[in-house]
Amino acid sequence: MRIRTPAIVVNFKTYPEASGQRSVELSQICGKVAEETGASIVVAPPLMDLALVARSVDIPVFAQHLDSVVSGSTTGHLTVENAKASGADGTLVNHSERRLRIAEIHEVIDRCRSAGLTTIVCTNNLAVSKASAAMEPDFVAIEPPELIGGDVSVTSANPRIVSDTVRAIRHIGNEVQVLCGAGVKNGRDVSKAVELGTDGVLLASGVVKSKDPRATLMDLVGGLRK
Amino acid sequence: MRIRTPAIVVNFKTYPEASGQRSVELSQICGKVAEETGASIVVAPPLMDLALVARSVDIPVFAQHLDSVVSGSTTGHLTVENAKASGADGTLVNHSERRLRIAEIHEVIDRCRSAGLTTIVCTNNLAVSKASAAMEPDFVAIEPPELIGGDVSVTSANPRIVSDTVRAIRHIGNEVQVLCGAGVKNGRDVSKAVELGTDGVLLASGVVKSKDPRATLMDLVGGLRK
Amino acid sequence: MRIRTPAIVVNFKTYPEASGQRSVELSQICGKVAEETGASIVVAPPLMDLALVARSVDIPVFAQHLDSVVSGSTTGHLTVENAKASGADGTLVNHSERRLRIAEIHEVIDRCRSAGLTTIVCTNNLAVSKASAAMEPDFVAIEPPELIGGDVSVTSANPRIVSDTVRAIRHIGNEVQVLCGAGVKNGRDVSKAVELGTDGVLLASGVVKSKDPRATLMDLVGGLRK
Amino acid sequence: MRIRTPAIVVNFKTYPEASGQRSVELSQICGKVAEETGASIVVAPPLMDLALVARSVDIPVFAQHLDSVVSGSTTGHLTVENAKASGADGTLVNHSERRLRIAEIHEVIDRCRSAGLTTIVCTNNLAVSKASAAMEPDFVAIEPPELIGGDVSVTSANPRIVSDTVRAIRHIGNEVQVLCGAGVKNGRDVSKAVELGTDGVLLASGVVKSKDPRATLMDLVGGLRK
Repeated sequence: MRIRTPAIVVNFKTYPEASGQRSVELSQICGKVAEETGASIVVAPPLMDLALVARSVDIPVFAQHLDSVVSGSTTGHLTVENAKASGADGTLVNHSERRLRIAEIHEVIDRCRSAGLTTIVCTNNLAVSKASAAMEPDFVAIEPPELIGGDVSVTSANPRIVSDTVRAIRHIGNEVQVLCGAGVKNGRDVSKAVELGTDGVLLASGVVKSKDPRATLMDLVGGLRK
Repeated sequence: MRIRTPAIVVNFKTYPEASGQRSVELSQICGKVAEETGASIVVAPPLMDLALVARSVDIPVFAQHLDSVVSGSTTGHLTVENAKASGADGTLVNHSERRLRIAEIHEVIDRCRSAGLTTIVCTNNLAVSKASAAMEPDFVAIEPPELIGGDVSVTSANPRIVSDTVRAIRHIGNEVQVLCGAGVKNGRDVSKAVELGTDGVLLASGVVKSKDPRATLMDLVGGLRK
Repeated sequence: MRIRTPAIVVNFKTYPEASGQRSVELSQICGKVAEETGASIVVAPPLMDLALVARSVDIPVFAQHLDSVVSGSTTGHLTVENAKASGADGTLVNHSERRLRIAEIHEVIDRCRSAGLTTIVCTNNLAVSKASAAMEPDFVAIEPPELIGGDVSVTSANPRIVSDTVRAIRHIGNEVQVLCGAGVKNGRDVSKAVELGTDGVLLASGVVKSKDPRATLMDLVGGLRK
Repeated sequence: MRIRTPAIVVNFKTYPEASGQRSVELSQICGKVAEETGASIVVAPPLMDLALVARSVDIPVFAQHLDSVVSGSTTGHLTVENAKASGADGTLVNHSERRLRIAEIHEVIDRCRSAGLTTIVCTNNLAVSKASAAMEPDFVAIEPPELIGGDVSVTSANPRIVSDTVRAIRHIGNEVQVLCGAGVKNGRDVSKAVELGTDGVLLASGVVKSKDPRATLMDLVGGLRK
């Protein structure tokens, strides 16, 4: 499933508020908002809920991480082939909370491309963003670690790193798209991200810990429209 | 859910033959054999299928691995809390294909105990079995690495390591139960394992790659009765 | 070289105050105090200084960590064989800042025993101490992580964990000796450690960051005599 | 110490033939050949021998690996600051036998630049080479893993990957230099490497396991002149 852009990617992390049955319910709220508004929303539920969520919604479902090992005698690992069989449409790669070796990033990108899965490589700064883009994932998502989980959006705290990343990646000249994340909370942040040249946002607690996820999502989606 | 013994624990690893929809189907075959024969059968499906499998069968469903991190900002990890919410009854720990640090093993055992999940710590030799038993998991599963995936059962190739492990762990005096694995393929192997004093077996390819998993399971279950 | 007990093991960590030429100088001060007082003092300098330090002193020199890989095509690793060739007398294993997988701990202990190197396995609590003792290293060093680097010695903050560890390990019945660490700063702490039944202490900043390491060492050594 | 090019970088790995006192001796042979011929030769001895080797020779001495942690409470790690204090002139980064996370590679490059240490990032294919070059180390060393330790030099087995890497990195436009490795054994291989546009070679067993390292080095150095 090709991801339409601009997109809002919701990472459920491993929050209790979004695991098991609550993972299914939050995914369905995301699906409903996507359907009603026509917005492109992607969910990345806790890994053990992936197949169940994939059967419960019509929007793209992503793994939060995949290992660079092949299916077979790799107990306890998360393979690209398993993700595909379980209904995944793509995966986050190298999230700041789950960093990978550079050769592993390249292998996961390659295997996902063969399997028809979309890849979003998360990066922590401009140099690592350029390095990641050189390996040609579908997306690079820049997330300055010091802003993750905070109250100020990267688009306000450090708009420069966002626009610099967009420019550097366009200059490398391949077709890698750019997301930004860290502190994204509302429609204004999304709107600013799009203005800065990105193809969407990656966020987590803003939706997962919201008292009214549906209202939060409607607000975020509003920001895509400018 | 307390695991009845003697038990047959089927690890699906990440085999394509047992992932996605095929993971559900194999689990249902295991469930049916358990129901018909009264045998205690446990399944450990690919991690991304766990919640889906847990909703599809009435037998215990185990994770193949859990990380020693807490739920929250731990993207891409597998937490005890998430496993519980997704319907897991227990987990393999320190499988030979997914070794853990000693302090992590202890943490996972502790958190699982609090959450009511059963732990099976996999070990590679007598010394590591004793060390693992000292941390008081529910089970230790001894699997000599050189025999894993092979054609000869540990119960024939090295019965001594099985009986030595059983004796050493009884001597440590806690209530840890013992499984054995590696090369287990049929009822005779299971029967031998029980004779040697174990509380059951852990196996993978013998069932997953069988042309007729139901027939294979019926044969294995027969070995519990001798 | 067999380590005499009670012993004072000084871990230089990677402190700038104790690396390069300063690593040699601090080791020589330790050597001099050992010579003058007859006390058993062991140094664990930064890894890249090991061979140089081993040539500069007559007291036992330990690695801070060794990998469980064999010598050969293992670029960038720290092998038991290399440590031996470089003049090491032993190694710390599983320090809280460099945790190992349980099977790795067992392998390092085994290889060191064959090579004639002494092993000190560091542990974080009673259960992990018992587990480590079951693998029969020469020493277990209990260091509650919450006290490491702090101002209060484990012997004051949690004397119970020290004596419980000593008792549990004696009960396992093998010949493992016990050290304790975390917050150890002066002769009184050392004296208390010995009273609680240990065979010595493991410390770092107390010596490395001392304004007068010689005076600090003389005070520590005094504690061995009480 | 800036590395003159074309250069021959000799990685001792953890071979017993090149550790402890033998590490010093092999480094001195390299130093002598460098002095006599004016060639640029760099040695990367086993890590625990680094400070000792650095005191014994006048040619550049490299670490085989450094961790991306800071000096202090990082027992058992290899810090940039410690390497500097121990006399290192640079380091290999991300060797195929010691792969790093992408963010770690970037951190090590950055810290080494500040400390005045030269970095050689090892890569396994074209995409990873471009990615690594984007993080601006001093050198990228392309080593196809299937050829490492073999009898056929990368310059014969896959000259295309060498020239493609050289071209791609020149195109990225920064000042990263290129080495190649894997199977390099003699002067002809070195000569071919220079012809293909590289700034030198990285080799290991060809020198370390040679019956006459001095003769082998003289032959290799001859290849620089063609």
